[in-house]
Amino acid sequence: MDRESFWTEDPSELLRVGDGFRLDDVDPHATPGFDGDKADGKRALAVGAAILAEQQELLYANSRGGDDERRILLVLQALDTAGKGGIVKHVMGAVDPQGVALTAFKKPTDEELAHDFLWRVEKVVPDAGMIGVFDRSHYEDVLIGRVRQLAPADEIERRYGAINEFEAQLAASGTTIIKVMLHISADEQKERLQERLDRPDKHWKFNPGDIDERLLRPKYMEAFQIAFDRTTAPDAPWYVVPADHKWYARLVVQHLLIQALEAMDLDWPPADFDIAAEKARLAAS
Amino acid sequence: MDRESFWTEDPSELLRVGDGFRLDDVDPHATPGFDGDKADGKRALAVGAAILAEQQELLYANSRGGDDERRILLVLQALDTAGKGGIVKHVMGAVDPQGVALTAFKKPTDEELAHDFLWRVEKVVPDAGMIGVFDRSHYEDVLIGRVRQLAPADEIERRYGAINEFEAQLAASGTTIIKVMLHISADEQKERLQERLDRPDKHWKFNPGDIDERLLRPKYMEAFQIAFDRTTAPDAPWYVVPADHKWYARLVVQHLLIQALEAMDLDWPPADFDIAAEKARLAAS
Repeated sequence: MDRESFWTEDPSELLRVGDGFRLDDVDPHATPGFDGDKADGKRALAVGAAILAEQQELLYANSRGGDDERRILLVLQALDTAGKGGIVKHVMGAVDPQGVALTAFKKPTDEELAHDFLWRVEKVVPDAGMIGVFDRSHYEDVLIGRVRQLAPADEIERRYGAINEFEAQLAASGTTIIKVMLHISADEQKERLQERLDRPDKHWKFNPGDIDERLLRPKYMEAFQIAFDRTTAPDAPWYVVPADHKWYARLVVQHLLIQALEAMDLDWPPADFDIAAEKARLAAS
Repeated sequence: MDRESFWTEDPSELLRVGDGFRLDDVDPHATPGFDGDKADGKRALAVGAAILAEQQELLYANSRGGDDERRILLVLQALDTAGKGGIVKHVMGAVDPQGVALTAFKKPTDEELAHDFLWRVEKVVPDAGMIGVFDRSHYEDVLIGRVRQLAPADEIERRYGAINEFEAQLAASGTTIIKVMLHISADEQKERLQERLDRPDKHWKFNPGDIDERLLRPKYMEAFQIAFDRTTAPDAPWYVVPADHKWYARLVVQHLLIQALEAMDLDWPPADFDIAAEKARLAAS
């Protein structure tokens, strides 16, 4: 974290789901590992953006110029208004679009429902050199799927194991998996929904169903806790990120990506052609 | 162009392929419609970036909050090093990633080759509310396809008509099509290839095949001219953008997108729910 000198402690250590983790214990309003305010947070995000963009280019370069199979998958899950969209816009938006593969998972289509729940997910896992981002994901099938009983109980139970197997395969094939739950308080969510109702330029972001979902908050928190208990793995960790402060959540997700990339110890790939020969050909052309 | 006050003349008028257009007449080093230098161009790009981002959000909002079917497809074609990647990074990179669908077309796979040349293209046309960007496109099949005789002559001939039909359908279903050829001079290309050979951090961008292609430049120019002659349509215009100055080409493409969006006369979509009722439900939640 030498270059992200604004952290007082590594947030990945502070926020990673470990043994005995209780979602109830997390304060959505806290900013663990960061001492500053919103203005400090925004400045830090700009510093991190340059580091992330540089690391992303190295990742991409190694998949193209070399045979590096590594890639990243960032999974974003959250209640409505928690800020998934803002992460995509402000964290991923600082990265060359050519290196990012974003998938926003909507309510499954009839065709998707006719297949196993992982069918639509397997089709869009990131290629080598890419940062894949899932805005919602296969976890919907054990979150809203569980809360609203969209599948039989034994099918929901089966899915946790299927997810673990799927993610283990992804990890084995070179994917660094980062799973994030953006954790927003009920009060902050109320304010954000209120803003969407108050402002004509935000109406399009509001859906009456958001309030129906809000009323199910306790059941969602339970479903998240079960998902953490059942699908946390060394190669597929969960991070619960306090998200009442948008700037903090963005900074954390940016850090998780930077950390994953720096751990790859990337450098420019060597030329896989004869440089002198190509220079001669170019000169003659 | 009120807000893009840096143009002296509308570059879309100056660069659009019209009757009697000759590619040979275009100077890749010129900057039609713009009087300033590189620094001026970069400042202008930052001004335009804010306009483009705002317009893109309106387009996206109308597809989500309303039932607006409109969308944009930007097609980028060029010789190697002409700057397609830079357009994606610097023009599209200023837009919320959630509203951009980028497809980079590579050498067709065996599966793709087993289908009609439009098969892989039809699968990735942009959804409503999106700006789709094709980095290379179905035009490869009448450019490299023609130059390297990758298909029989009569099949190549057939494709121009098939493209026109395909694009007419896209336009009829609400797609504003913008087709751009980035036009780089042979000298400038040589310099850029030289840089990729000189700099270790650029080696990954170099491919010996780029020099083979470079040697075929006259044939490519001919194939482009034929493509312009055969596939220019009022709803699917071509623009030939001088690209020796990267900053100029980026500014033009940004302008073409802004112009297309402003022509839609977008505003925030009205609420499709009862605002007062939802406020009451939220207050009670």
